Amino acid sequence: MNTFGNIFRFTDFGESHGAAIGGVIDGCPAGLTIDFLAIQHDLDRRAGRDSQFSVSERAKHEADKVEFLSGIYDGITLGTPIAFIIWNTDAKPEDYEAISDIYRPGHADFTYQAKYGIRDPRGGGRASARETAARVVAGSIAKQILSKKGIGINAIVTQVGNETEPENFPTLLSDIKQKGDSIGGIVSCTVSGLPIGIGEPVFDKLHARLAYAIMSINACKGFEYGSGFDGIDKCGSQLNSYSGGALGGISDGTDFCFRCVFKPTPSISQEQHLPDGSQLTIHGRHDVCVALRAPVIVEAMTALTLVDLICLNDR
Amino acid sequence: MNTFGNIFRFTDFGESHGAAIGGVIDGCPAGLTIDFLAIQHDLDRRAGRDSQFSVSERAKHEADKVEFLSGIYDGITLGTPIAFIIWNTDAKPEDYEAISDIYRPGHADFTYQAKYGIRDPRGGGRASARETAARVVAGSIAKQILSKKGIGINAIVTQVGNETEPENFPTLLSDIKQKGDSIGGIVSCTVSGLPIGIGEPVFDKLHARLAYAIMSINACKGFEYGSGFDGIDKCGSQLNSYSGGALGGISDGTDFCFRCVFKPTPSISQEQHLPDGSQLTIHGRHDVCVALRAPVIVEAMTALTLVDLICLNDR
Amino acid sequence: MNTFGNIFRFTDFGESHGAAIGGVIDGCPAGLTIDFLAIQHDLDRRAGRDSQFSVSERAKHEADKVEFLSGIYDGITLGTPIAFIIWNTDAKPEDYEAISDIYRPGHADFTYQAKYGIRDPRGGGRASARETAARVVAGSIAKQILSKKGIGINAIVTQVGNETEPENFPTLLSDIKQKGDSIGGIVSCTVSGLPIGIGEPVFDKLHARLAYAIMSINACKGFEYGSGFDGIDKCGSQLNSYSGGALGGISDGTDFCFRCVFKPTPSISQEQHLPDGSQLTIHGRHDVCVALRAPVIVEAMTALTLVDLICLNDR
Amino acid sequence: MNTFGNIFRFTDFGESHGAAIGGVIDGCPAGLTIDFLAIQHDLDRRAGRDSQFSVSERAKHEADKVEFLSGIYDGITLGTPIAFIIWNTDAKPEDYEAISDIYRPGHADFTYQAKYGIRDPRGGGRASARETAARVVAGSIAKQILSKKGIGINAIVTQVGNETEPENFPTLLSDIKQKGDSIGGIVSCTVSGLPIGIGEPVFDKLHARLAYAIMSINACKGFEYGSGFDGIDKCGSQLNSYSGGALGGISDGTDFCFRCVFKPTPSISQEQHLPDGSQLTIHGRHDVCVALRAPVIVEAMTALTLVDLICLNDR
Repeated sequence: MNTFGNIFRFTDFGESHGAAIGGVIDGCPAGLTIDFLAIQHDLDRRAGRDSQFSVSERAKHEADKVEFLSGIYDGITLGTPIAFIIWNTDAKPEDYEAISDIYRPGHADFTYQAKYGIRDPRGGGRASARETAARVVAGSIAKQILSKKGIGINAIVTQVGNETEPENFPTLLSDIKQKGDSIGGIVSCTVSGLPIGIGEPVFDKLHARLAYAIMSINACKGFEYGSGFDGIDKCGSQLNSYSGGALGGISDGTDFCFRCVFKPTPSISQEQHLPDGSQLTIHGRHDVCVALRAPVIVEAMTALTLVDLICLNDR
Repeated sequence: MNTFGNIFRFTDFGESHGAAIGGVIDGCPAGLTIDFLAIQHDLDRRAGRDSQFSVSERAKHEADKVEFLSGIYDGITLGTPIAFIIWNTDAKPEDYEAISDIYRPGHADFTYQAKYGIRDPRGGGRASARETAARVVAGSIAKQILSKKGIGINAIVTQVGNETEPENFPTLLSDIKQKGDSIGGIVSCTVSGLPIGIGEPVFDKLHARLAYAIMSINACKGFEYGSGFDGIDKCGSQLNSYSGGALGGISDGTDFCFRCVFKPTPSISQEQHLPDGSQLTIHGRHDVCVALRAPVIVEAMTALTLVDLICLNDR
Repeated sequence: MNTFGNIFRFTDFGESHGAAIGGVIDGCPAGLTIDFLAIQHDLDRRAGRDSQFSVSERAKHEADKVEFLSGIYDGITLGTPIAFIIWNTDAKPEDYEAISDIYRPGHADFTYQAKYGIRDPRGGGRASARETAARVVAGSIAKQILSKKGIGINAIVTQVGNETEPENFPTLLSDIKQKGDSIGGIVSCTVSGLPIGIGEPVFDKLHARLAYAIMSINACKGFEYGSGFDGIDKCGSQLNSYSGGALGGISDGTDFCFRCVFKPTPSISQEQHLPDGSQLTIHGRHDVCVALRAPVIVEAMTALTLVDLICLNDR
Repeated sequence: MNTFGNIFRFTDFGESHGAAIGGVIDGCPAGLTIDFLAIQHDLDRRAGRDSQFSVSERAKHEADKVEFLSGIYDGITLGTPIAFIIWNTDAKPEDYEAISDIYRPGHADFTYQAKYGIRDPRGGGRASARETAARVVAGSIAKQILSKKGIGINAIVTQVGNETEPENFPTLLSDIKQKGDSIGGIVSCTVSGLPIGIGEPVFDKLHARLAYAIMSINACKGFEYGSGFDGIDKCGSQLNSYSGGALGGISDGTDFCFRCVFKPTPSISQEQHLPDGSQLTIHGRHDVCVALRAPVIVEAMTALTLVDLICLNDR
């Protein structure tokens, strides 16, 4: 359940304010020289340390430094499981004591408690977006594997609220931030250089596996590829020439293009009314728009999916 | 790859014009009395035999009758694999001989040939939507399991092209049909009665697994739940009270609501221009809007997903 | 649970006296020309129709003829699921009515009833050795894949009771048969031509996966490879030069040699005393020694295991 | 490949002289109070620190202390992945430099190099028996789950070489040790209190899954249950009353009894002749009989198997 993939497999663990988060990559080919700087670069992209709209108080103080425990010898993969951890050095459980018995609106506090009968109340525990840092490490290695095959993945934010002009994003974000509110966004991703034949009929279609991967990212509410929902007013005679990158679920040699939407972060500074009539104010700084930090996670999940499907196709 | 699910597992086989299509359901609880009429009813819904817009020439002549080979004794499940077949009695391979060396636009002919180096040229072979009949049989049994738990699944067509008023669908469809063209549609689905706690962190979130299941249906181009893409212009303060049925990927006791979009069928009567400069006319009657026949398939894939996740949660 | 393998996967279904038994092979490479005669030859070996010691009344009347439903076009595999069935033409449920409420000693009647709360009482249902016919079909195709890679599998009976001289087997078997009793046997199997590197650390060692495969055959009570149990009185200095075909669970280029033991069939003609004090006589002809028919099943399970591990290694 | 189990899943990582070994347990029920002392006790049993025949130089200096990173909060499981590590504090890579380009007889040095094209030459790397410490941690937690259900697992050494009298083991072992040689042994294991119905037809029979689990332990060469190989000279009329704990692969309510054989450790002090004509002497102290330390590992693999099968049965 916490393992992603069939042949190139990534197992992910860790609570937001536990000792550490991390993962195990199994099925990584032997002989790959790991680019550790590229991994750190991706972790930094996710942390969004440069942005006034996405940096959290924690990210400011805690650099995500990954430590590899196995599977790599002299910088080269052994073909054995690659385990890694990121210590939660800035864990501040006391910040969450005040709200440990409150189910925050739009968060998973309630459903975890109901499902397991117990939960780690510190910062969302396992449901925290901090978990995605481990995905980024694994995804960064997957991107290195793909890069050697000439496959590129590029994800960017193409919409914030109703705004589609990137130069206008800051204005809108400042406005939302000032109100103590949050806003959604859309990330667009293009995969180039994918060989023909990737994807498996009938359940493991390329786009079905990608939809699963992307929708598993926190706050993601929708996925579409090719003509997507916007193609609804087009006829067959107009769309037959645009596949979006796959036919019958199998890559066709054109760029694979998809979009996904992220809801506004539910943690907002505004006072919120709870179902029981009480009121809640969540302190600390929070992301104005989680979509801003999503591209590197979208790339990671895309890369993990593609490496696994390529392994399956090449068997 | 042709198996769906982890504990309640459905393996699917068959080419459109081979001897038969069918499947094997593994992990079905013992002691379930099968409602065979309900299965046939779902198969008839999929065939769309009553509709002037969706019936194919084949569906007119060939009733999909399912034959069970194992796993059921005196109408009751044994807990062993349930195998079933639907014979391809009306298979007319000769209809496809003329186009066996042509890659039809928007179809999977080209990608299958490239992936496998061989393909069954008769009617799309494995990539044909005929394969979904087997999904409907398995899904119908899954719906019977869910029904006993008080869980209902209801999918309907809510949009055809830009038209959202059902009474106007026929007018639009007649128009498209007359032009020898095809049009896309949107199916909306609601799951009611789902207990709290279904769905697994972090990869197997309820909506991630459903996205995978639904996007694996032929011609599906997008999936969204809750506020989806349309929620892009809402703020966190507005959306925190609407989850769409899951928080942190785990069902929260409210109805789970999702929508999916189907592209226009690529098989159209109009003359089409191929990349090599030649022209192609596809004969026979074809669906004007495949979305019309999709609801029962959407229900089937939803049911297969839910039974599997419920088994996982109840372990 | 009724699926064997990870990449080259075999799903098996059917009760002994239901409509049919059969299976689905998923992950078979495209472009393989199937040798149907070889499959029938293996089915005939399993039926043991020529032997006075292993033929059952049923095998005399019912030839196991396999019918392929999908995945093969003009005798060549398509890369899609290969479904096949063997009809139970000679099913005689009435033979079992008299004992439908009795738990036969040494059989699975009791455990199936306890596990599922229901069972097919006709001839052992799913627990019948008839199920192994489907394994033989799938295994025969797997052997054809291996054969093209120069890999051979050869299993023979090397011991019946305490007798290790094949020419003395008939004498011993006649004696046991006359007493209305049954006897165990040992099957030895050699895999030649296996490339170096097959088998995965640490759980999916070559011999661990083979032990799983072989021990899943009805009546098998033990598995050993290389020096096995008999090596117990040897020292490290003596055994270091003999691996049995694998080191660290990975094939080392020498022949892989293993042995497995089959218990006497529990169905015997002698009157048996049941725990409740009553007496049971099982009519019909039964195998004197099930090990006699086991070699082709041992080869099948070995082949299914090896093709899957080779696919995994070649990814 | 480095993950064991389907629902209760254990992923294992680490090289003998890398930074750490460890694992991730996924699917552990929430709400279990962990007995950390019991885990340490099992780790100490495996280290064999008290025995003059099994202690290695390394075990003398390095206590295996496990550190939990996730999935446990205030000593209680959260239902999320339980990650743990054991640091390789006494790793002495320099000890292995001299033999880093030698393939030690009976070891996996050669097959790893051939399979991956690279290997960690320090102490066997991933193939080292040190990896089993992680199995013991996971298995100890699995035993705690089983214990609450009244299920007990007990494994002991019942034979060393040809000697079956425990009081004579030391004499024999002293003799072998003095010669700088090693000897094999047999471990017998009994599972009591197992409910009826555990094990899945047809491939995942209780004994087939156990055979897979046990045979995956380093140096194991054979597995048998019930009458096993020794039952070869018994007739059906004699054996029908003794199942060994399973009928048709499903537990029948009696104790499940199995035996497994471990070869002599290939690391011996005697001078050994290599295939190329050269001679090798392996320095350091090595186990005289690895079977002595195996019981706790046998119990661990048995427990991991049973918890997984019980989860599957209870779904």
